[in-house]
Amino acid sequence: MVADLQTVAGSRLNPLLSGVAAPPIAEAQGWVRGRTFPLDKPLIDLAQAVPGYPPPDALVEHLARRLADPAVHRYTDILGHTRLREALAAHMSAAYAGTIGADQVAITAGCNQAFCLAIMALAQAGDEVILPLPYYFNHRMWLDALGVAAVPLTFRPESGGVPDLDEAASRITGRTRTIVLVTPNNPTGAIYPPEAIEGFYRLAQRHGIALILDETYKDFRPGDEPAHQLFQDPDWPETLIQLYSFSKVFCLTGYRVGSLIAGRRVMESVEKAMDCIAICAPAIGQEAALFGLSELDDWRRGNTALMGERVQAFRTGFERVEGFRLISLGAYFAYVQHPFPDRTAAAVARDLAEQHNLLTLPGSMFGEGQERFLRLAFANVPAGTVPAIVERLSTAAGTGGRKT
Amino acid sequence: MVADLQTVAGSRLNPLLSGVAAPPIAEAQGWVRGRTFPLDKPLIDLAQAVPGYPPPDALVEHLARRLADPAVHRYTDILGHTRLREALAAHMSAAYAGTIGADQVAITAGCNQAFCLAIMALAQAGDEVILPLPYYFNHRMWLDALGVAAVPLTFRPESGGVPDLDEAASRITGRTRTIVLVTPNNPTGAIYPPEAIEGFYRLAQRHGIALILDETYKDFRPGDEPAHQLFQDPDWPETLIQLYSFSKVFCLTGYRVGSLIAGRRVMESVEKAMDCIAICAPAIGQEAALFGLSELDDWRRGNTALMGERVQAFRTGFERVEGFRLISLGAYFAYVQHPFPDRTAAAVARDLAEQHNLLTLPGSMFGEGQERFLRLAFANVPAGTVPAIVERLSTAAGTGGRKT
Repeated sequence: MVADLQTVAGSRLNPLLSGVAAPPIAEAQGWVRGRTFPLDKPLIDLAQAVPGYPPPDALVEHLARRLADPAVHRYTDILGHTRLREALAAHMSAAYAGTIGADQVAITAGCNQAFCLAIMALAQAGDEVILPLPYYFNHRMWLDALGVAAVPLTFRPESGGVPDLDEAASRITGRTRTIVLVTPNNPTGAIYPPEAIEGFYRLAQRHGIALILDETYKDFRPGDEPAHQLFQDPDWPETLIQLYSFSKVFCLTGYRVGSLIAGRRVMESVEKAMDCIAICAPAIGQEAALFGLSELDDWRRGNTALMGERVQAFRTGFERVEGFRLISLGAYFAYVQHPFPDRTAAAVARDLAEQHNLLTLPGSMFGEGQERFLRLAFANVPAGTVPAIVERLSTAAGTGGRKT
Repeated sequence: MVADLQTVAGSRLNPLLSGVAAPPIAEAQGWVRGRTFPLDKPLIDLAQAVPGYPPPDALVEHLARRLADPAVHRYTDILGHTRLREALAAHMSAAYAGTIGADQVAITAGCNQAFCLAIMALAQAGDEVILPLPYYFNHRMWLDALGVAAVPLTFRPESGGVPDLDEAASRITGRTRTIVLVTPNNPTGAIYPPEAIEGFYRLAQRHGIALILDETYKDFRPGDEPAHQLFQDPDWPETLIQLYSFSKVFCLTGYRVGSLIAGRRVMESVEKAMDCIAICAPAIGQEAALFGLSELDDWRRGNTALMGERVQAFRTGFERVEGFRLISLGAYFAYVQHPFPDRTAAAVARDLAEQHNLLTLPGSMFGEGQERFLRLAFANVPAGTVPAIVERLSTAAGTGGRKT
């Protein structure tokens, strides 16, 4: 192997992309790859956010039937199937008691892609994007790849993880193009109150910048109250860009289908970038999403309830954990403080994986100042697994969490 | 509606993306949207490059069976299923009598995405990419979106559409990051000779820049001889990036699956960008591609033969066309000169659509200096349709091709 990549013969690379951090999930999976685990201490994988249950049989059977339609094998319109765009517009209009038209909906190949498109529509190299800490790592990676500066906001565990509005206001400059909020939050699980979301929306509106609201985990909030009232403002298309994913709610991670909701001006740019990076979201994934929206509302509610039980089991279980402290817990994720102030989060996570067969992600993957934290994607595992998690964390705390 | 977008209240947009041309296929489809066509003069759609036949039953049945496997609903590794990467490495190694490892293969959500990833790995705003005329429009759109300058090479119909190597050499500067070749070419259909491809490869190699070779239409070349010998050079990973699509060969346009083959250094950057814009290609599309590579070689050969017949029918038929002149004909596409020197290509294409129910793309969608040309994606239609195409073009030529 070559020690110094800069001296390798061959084509020059884009230093912006070379400088982006390695994909974190793949890195964490590398810690356990190739290992076998004893029956009495199997791997508990709390790393990647994936549903711990399969999609419903009715959905799988529907897809098998839909394969007979030649249209399923062909491109759709760039922004997606008209029927799916209409169905999602109706779903979101109902969920937020707002007004969203089908022409304000883009179907994307997953929510990561929706974020990529939103950023490209707004920002170019040298621009700034306000990205609260801790952030979703792919957001930071994409900004770095484009040469767009990520401007952090302080993590405030004492305020439920909600970033400070005044701090955000103080960070807006002439190069700021958008504020990014993820709620329910990845990695903390925090569900931002409607008034907090409204505050950031008004701030963005006043400054003529966009608010990107990533609501990938919206279906795992308890209750039926709208998460915010932004779609009730007739002027929302001038400021708001909402991102969403069908992956988690209908267990469709492999199908790559998500959405972006925005006004006409943003949508024109989104359509151009979408044509280049995808042509369209996969047709069969769009079929799955349409079936989910049309037929799986009860199933979705059942899973929301199930997630609520897991949250409760985790909260109760954590009362018995020694050393580790629960910082934030909400939809899908728990954000946990480890008991070793002199160790990096990566070292702790790696030891948990190697010594205790417990795969988590270190806070350092989610930004600066996160060395004391771990993200646990508890939605991946049934509530019955919580005691084993509690036991392993307590053991790790008791042994100093170190290799001996 | 608002007359001047610049004065609209609301968030500012990225002018690079706002300035990108509108997606051409969608624009052309708009010319016939909502119209009905008489039975004796149906729409002949030669606009988008899509196979005019469905995927084979065996493939569809295989996918229906594969839906029973829970893994098909989940993410794959970022760069794709290991088995598919291995199968494609073996396929390409055999097709080019070269050496390609599975770790040099990325599975992408289509070939457009592969191009996006390749460019991001190499270039940032202010860099230059050599893009021969006429170009594939999505290539130009993506370069414009990133602020990367597209440096043209003159279209040379008299040389079979192959760009001039000396001209390319003269356009290389300190900002040049890659030369892009598409062979078989879109939009001209031209199949570049191996020695021409080799020349561009050596030129790139000498200058320490990459050669991107888009071989989306490779399966529609006649014969079994390798299209080039580049993969036989042990140093290819330092210079060559090959792009490919499963969409056309296995009729999988709706599944979004393609590939990028490159050396380790480029692949590390590709993996980062892929994680952001897609996480992974759709799992079910990867299943389809794997089945195609493993089981559909005879079917593929049958379609290559079928395409050969269409080329022949088109060549013969065109001898009877009045006014329009066949400039280039090869795999999938014909590039045709229209007989109206004082009219734009867009005006001619639009009239063909509106007056003669014949949907083509104007040369102007493929770059500067292309106003005299039209692209006809003849692979979309059976050979039996050629007489109707001939008749309609001749009629258009005879009536001046104008609205009266």
